Amino acid sequence: MSRAFNFAAGPATLPEAVLRQAQEEMLEWNGVGASIVEISHRGAEFMEVARQAEADLRTLMSIPDDYAVLFLAGGATLQQALIPLNFAAPGQAADYVVTGHWGKTAIKQARTYVDARIAADGESSGFHDIPPRSEWRLTPGAAYVHYTANETIHGVEFRDIPDVGDAPLVADFSSSIAAEPLDVSRFGVIYGGAQKNLGPVGVTVVIVRRDLLERAGQPRADIMNYRSHVAGESMLNTPPTWNWYLAGLVFKWMLAEGGVDEFARRNARKSALLYGAIDGSGGFYRNDVVPAARSRMNVPFFLHDPALDAAFLKESKAAGLLALKGHRVLGGMRASIYNAMPEAGVQALVDFMRDFQNRHG
Amino acid sequence: MSRAFNFAAGPATLPEAVLRQAQEEMLEWNGVGASIVEISHRGAEFMEVARQAEADLRTLMSIPDDYAVLFLAGGATLQQALIPLNFAAPGQAADYVVTGHWGKTAIKQARTYVDARIAADGESSGFHDIPPRSEWRLTPGAAYVHYTANETIHGVEFRDIPDVGDAPLVADFSSSIAAEPLDVSRFGVIYGGAQKNLGPVGVTVVIVRRDLLERAGQPRADIMNYRSHVAGESMLNTPPTWNWYLAGLVFKWMLAEGGVDEFARRNARKSALLYGAIDGSGGFYRNDVVPAARSRMNVPFFLHDPALDAAFLKESKAAGLLALKGHRVLGGMRASIYNAMPEAGVQALVDFMRDFQNRHG
Repeated sequence: MSRAFNFAAGPATLPEAVLRQAQEEMLEWNGVGASIVEISHRGAEFMEVARQAEADLRTLMSIPDDYAVLFLAGGATLQQALIPLNFAAPGQAADYVVTGHWGKTAIKQARTYVDARIAADGESSGFHDIPPRSEWRLTPGAAYVHYTANETIHGVEFRDIPDVGDAPLVADFSSSIAAEPLDVSRFGVIYGGAQKNLGPVGVTVVIVRRDLLERAGQPRADIMNYRSHVAGESMLNTPPTWNWYLAGLVFKWMLAEGGVDEFARRNARKSALLYGAIDGSGGFYRNDVVPAARSRMNVPFFLHDPALDAAFLKESKAAGLLALKGHRVLGGMRASIYNAMPEAGVQALVDFMRDFQNRHG
Repeated sequence: MSRAFNFAAGPATLPEAVLRQAQEEMLEWNGVGASIVEISHRGAEFMEVARQAEADLRTLMSIPDDYAVLFLAGGATLQQALIPLNFAAPGQAADYVVTGHWGKTAIKQARTYVDARIAADGESSGFHDIPPRSEWRLTPGAAYVHYTANETIHGVEFRDIPDVGDAPLVADFSSSIAAEPLDVSRFGVIYGGAQKNLGPVGVTVVIVRRDLLERAGQPRADIMNYRSHVAGESMLNTPPTWNWYLAGLVFKWMLAEGGVDEFARRNARKSALLYGAIDGSGGFYRNDVVPAARSRMNVPFFLHDPALDAAFLKESKAAGLLALKGHRVLGGMRASIYNAMPEAGVQALVDFMRDFQNRHG
């Protein structure tokens, strides 16, 4: 068994301690005579796993009581369709701030249901910066304002929660949820796939301010109704139990490690180390995002000579550094350094990058 | 480690060999330096897992080439909403044959989008029988005819594929998919959550005749569009990779055991053994479904004296027979005996039932 440092963008590296526990419990969980994968979601045992996971996430993220927490199947993209269905009247205006690929996806899913207006768009800057709040064109009476807290592909991250007045703020936190302390009370809805910072793919966390659940929304099947999911405690239908359980193990691990305060410190150190290596390479490596908007989770970078890309990928893999190939939208390289990526992993990457530069520079 | 016989209705028992392989590979899969849970769905490694799973399911179920196979998140209930969205015009008539709880659920999810007509309803018989085909009131020009091949709660199963003329036949096979040979070419759509006969909860199989994908359907977000899912090879967004992988292991196990022909024989023997014990108990145990409609997958049964239910559940659990409590809709007991339930498990249950009757009869 030889585990490498895995820089994949999601599905992404998980804490080894979590994988070891999942491994130990795979054939029999907690003395019940069956795997956690095999037991009923409605039995007392799994209900307690689910309850504990929610309680731990509430502790981890300091989620106020007037917010419901859902654990749903379907991924963040499905939520991007459900948000207008649940929180906007048919054809009502909703504002979208676009700072990269996923902001565009959010609009694509919503457009069937709302008048999705681009309040600000970073595309003219090549998504290298966040349009300043003063330039956003918000629509009076908009159902909500949506933004992407961290752009997984473009490596652009909001450092502050934008003030958008009375409209509920809806944010895709798929790739930066629980990476640092967050004032949840500033949001109407926070959602995110678990597969980056919170656990395995297959379960999506939706945190909704309860008063929004009273909105009529639009005609939709019951399975697309957040109100029904809240009433059904995320068990309107059979939930992805193993994924939920594994996310719960990650929450426990994060709490034991010191919670989001500690991860904020580690993430600051890890990202500073990596950006420092890029910026200090004399142009051999390059990240194009303006420093104030750089993501602490996803670091896209380019070699000065793309002809070296193949060698970089081959040699890094041989050095035990996996999945550094950039997303096809951007090309180049990308290192995703979520909570579960140890500082030793980033150090190993930086060491490799220096060595590679020495040999190919 | 002590594994019991688990009669849960889904999530349900899995082949021990599959769990052992998943356990072995939990920290590192196939020498790639990471768990299968951690690697990119878009990498060559997982793409091959996905491709192989589809190929194996096609072999297992003899799925013709003019059918697309999808592996989706969200469960069968979500598909019950997506089916009218994709295959019916707004408000168009669609026929539903209701033979139990899940048939009613299918209508509930569809009603927002279609004129869901109950072509036949077993409720007047207490869902103890399937309304004869000759009494179905089919609507000329209906978008499709929907039925539930096996009712997990009421224990009612179609033994034959109904002939409904030109309308595409859409069937929920969640609890009986791949339990026996099936002529897929008779269907427009077959769908089912994997968590009963095919693997873990969190992934849903949808088998669609390709010509139906050309139907305009109704306005819907891209993530609700089967055509997009087919074009994106079930990776329109990040799929539930581990669940897909585990389903793939179950497909391989089923093929190695002899495929659906062999499971049909085992399922016939297992269900005959259990129904025989019930019917031969002199009324101590009772199943109310007419023999020709009895499910081979889910066997609900009642003790002649409900005051004995608690003792039955306590003693069966102590004897290593788990999750026999009936669904809350019906009460009583239920034994789910899917493909992965060994014949020894049903024999142990029947032995326990005789012993319990001797002691309490």
